[in-house]
Amino acid sequence: MIAEQKVLDKGFVRLLEVMGDDLSIVQAARVSYGQGAKGDDKDKKLIRYLYTHKHTSPFEMVEFKFHVRCPIFVARQWIRHRTWNYNEYSMRYSDAISDYYVPATWRKQDVKNKQGSTDPLSAEVNEELREKYRRQCDEAFKLYDELIRDGIAREMARFVVPVGTYTEFYGKIDLGNLLKFLMLRDDPHAQWEIQVYARAIKELVQPHVPWTMEIYDELRQNSAQSA
Amino acid sequence: MIAEQKVLDKGFVRLLEVMGDDLSIVQAARVSYGQGAKGDDKDKKLIRYLYTHKHTSPFEMVEFKFHVRCPIFVARQWIRHRTWNYNEYSMRYSDAISDYYVPATWRKQDVKNKQGSTDPLSAEVNEELREKYRRQCDEAFKLYDELIRDGIAREMARFVVPVGTYTEFYGKIDLGNLLKFLMLRDDPHAQWEIQVYARAIKELVQPHVPWTMEIYDELRQNSAQSA
Amino acid sequence: MIAEQKVLDKGFVRLLEVMGDDLSIVQAARVSYGQGAKGDDKDKKLIRYLYTHKHTSPFEMVEFKFHVRCPIFVARQWIRHRTWNYNEYSMRYSDAISDYYVPATWRKQDVKNKQGSTDPLSAEVNEELREKYRRQCDEAFKLYDELIRDGIAREMARFVVPVGTYTEFYGKIDLGNLLKFLMLRDDPHAQWEIQVYARAIKELVQPHVPWTMEIYDELRQNSAQSA
Amino acid sequence: MIAEQKVLDKGFVRLLEVMGDDLSIVQAARVSYGQGAKGDDKDKKLIRYLYTHKHTSPFEMVEFKFHVRCPIFVARQWIRHRTWNYNEYSMRYSDAISDYYVPATWRKQDVKNKQGSTDPLSAEVNEELREKYRRQCDEAFKLYDELIRDGIAREMARFVVPVGTYTEFYGKIDLGNLLKFLMLRDDPHAQWEIQVYARAIKELVQPHVPWTMEIYDELRQNSAQSA
Repeated sequence: MIAEQKVLDKGFVRLLEVMGDDLSIVQAARVSYGQGAKGDDKDKKLIRYLYTHKHTSPFEMVEFKFHVRCPIFVARQWIRHRTWNYNEYSMRYSDAISDYYVPATWRKQDVKNKQGSTDPLSAEVNEELREKYRRQCDEAFKLYDELIRDGIAREMARFVVPVGTYTEFYGKIDLGNLLKFLMLRDDPHAQWEIQVYARAIKELVQPHVPWTMEIYDELRQNSAQSA
Repeated sequence: MIAEQKVLDKGFVRLLEVMGDDLSIVQAARVSYGQGAKGDDKDKKLIRYLYTHKHTSPFEMVEFKFHVRCPIFVARQWIRHRTWNYNEYSMRYSDAISDYYVPATWRKQDVKNKQGSTDPLSAEVNEELREKYRRQCDEAFKLYDELIRDGIAREMARFVVPVGTYTEFYGKIDLGNLLKFLMLRDDPHAQWEIQVYARAIKELVQPHVPWTMEIYDELRQNSAQSA
Repeated sequence: MIAEQKVLDKGFVRLLEVMGDDLSIVQAARVSYGQGAKGDDKDKKLIRYLYTHKHTSPFEMVEFKFHVRCPIFVARQWIRHRTWNYNEYSMRYSDAISDYYVPATWRKQDVKNKQGSTDPLSAEVNEELREKYRRQCDEAFKLYDELIRDGIAREMARFVVPVGTYTEFYGKIDLGNLLKFLMLRDDPHAQWEIQVYARAIKELVQPHVPWTMEIYDELRQNSAQSA
Repeated sequence: MIAEQKVLDKGFVRLLEVMGDDLSIVQAARVSYGQGAKGDDKDKKLIRYLYTHKHTSPFEMVEFKFHVRCPIFVARQWIRHRTWNYNEYSMRYSDAISDYYVPATWRKQDVKNKQGSTDPLSAEVNEELREKYRRQCDEAFKLYDELIRDGIAREMARFVVPVGTYTEFYGKIDLGNLLKFLMLRDDPHAQWEIQVYARAIKELVQPHVPWTMEIYDELRQNSAQSA
């Protein structure tokens, strides 16, 4: 059975396959140390030691494969991480996915810090802008469909598709690099829409590498406090 | 003076900085061979030998830095190549670039092969679709501006922006991996809009590594004939 | 049960874990194509199409983890391939492995081509050189042991260890990059001692991705003929 | 003129080529921010902000190329860093470099911590072990030369060469990944023999990116204090 987390209004992350667990990290590290397995507490301590001393290579011995459905602007932030393997849905070979992300709440621009902010709009204005946004996106897909009907190549018809449109990809990554991804994206500086994907991933991998995620969460909090 | 190639209707590639030339490849290979420099013909032959025998590491000793302006859908294909270093213009920190790509000619979908095709539309239909496309994109940017004026965070206002919109990035890559990029993107299977960027890059690097590009062009043609 | 291949006089490759198979490649490619699964022949044809057109990303969705025991000079060639994840046995943390590789037959230097050659030595000279080599290596390990007994740090005592000494590592890699590794190392230009490791790996992965390896073998032979 | 640092008894690091400086980082970051250049203090502050917030991509826009001569055991630790481009001297194509590293002082094994330690040997024992070590290495090279004279392939004759032998390589890396390399190797947990190479590199790059190295040094010290 595939574990799935729903994310945003129409997205998801599915954990398709897993190679290894916390003990794979210990086992890989012990190739370096040339020693056999030990009791549980020592293994957990070793994971903590490796992680805090940036001995990241043993964490690379655990691998996860996900199926992700997210808006294009999230995929664009994601795919900047070059340590994943990716296969993305192609709008050259197939029709665009006509679902687009509709935010429940528009966030206001933070004036101090140039990224997103949280001062709320009135419920009325919020709803009015959502309606305008939906109309605009629907018009975009109407033109997309018209271009397709006129026989225009898919790779060109897609020019009108908004970056809020959903895309899908398979993404595979080792645990060492996943932790770096999470440190950057499960972080209040990241755009909220990718934070929720990062947290979905955390939920999905936690049962497979509980010791590692416990240490990650602890260091995550320390780094948040010192920031 | 910075070399520049204009690409598409409003794009460009600028070659900002270069490290090394054909002789850097020879010099790096000779660390392996432990020998001093030779006459020109032998150096050129060595480059050919290295390239055809997939000894790619000496080509990694030459580095190029570009400034690229291209539509988002081109940037998305580009950034799948994980051997580049990238810094992209961010619509979180700055307003979206309001220029979008308007194709001179819409290509029709090829029925056999699922990618783009070349059967022409009538000039009239072509122009009509361009007009509809421009109106749709203009509407998208009108809503974008309205969202910005209403104080919505840039990172959200961009949801409406079409993937035909221009973006900019700095991209840095070594010659060995650039040749792999070119083999895939300076290729009739690639979307035409990225092919023209690949060819602009070829023009820009050719004066710096003329021997390498001569061998590349030759093998490029052989591989095209055998495909 | 872990599959193992013995290699050289005291080495091995063990396949520890596998994620995915030929169908994972098809499934990943179909995310791009946005289509469901098909009959066997079409799937096999798709794998051939992807491989010959250098659409390598779907092959990255299959992952293998190996335990390797090989001489240091083989490990040094291997670890130049930067697409593997590695954990190597450390002579800083543990005593050097005191096994070293003794070649059955010394190969003579090829004068034309600067790499190894195959003109045989007489059986007598061959045996005499093996004996001298063994004595030299045994002396090296005798001094190593003496340094250790004198309390010298392992990280320094190892300075005397010959590069023919065995080391061990865990190595993890995706199938796409494994095929590139094999193209370079399962090749007559590679040193014979790494070729046999490459062939051991081929034997181990073949049952998991038989279609892919069939296509690889075919293209491997074509490329050998055209070289 | 090429800057050079002598390292260990017969090694060196030479800085061969440089692309960019501190301002290249600012310029690359400003593509993201879409803003023009500012006064010096603001630029320096931006570099600090980027570095402390792990916005590493602008640092990837600066590139350095080195020529390194170091013992094989140092090269083996170095080449585990997969973000460098390497071309190493090959003992398949050329005779082994017959220089080997002779430590001035043997360090003793630390019993608590399994890595190297600093309790001194007596000057006499130290000298005696150096002499034995030199004799052993000289014997190894004598046999190497004999194998070569007997026409044995270089790729095999090298089996006897000790890992303390010098090798040479060209190494190219961007500043972002160089800083990660330095954080791990310019560190008291690293073997002393690679620490001195890391410090040589710091000296060589400092004049090119003084602001970045100032921030690096500061964070380096903080991280040392909290470890």
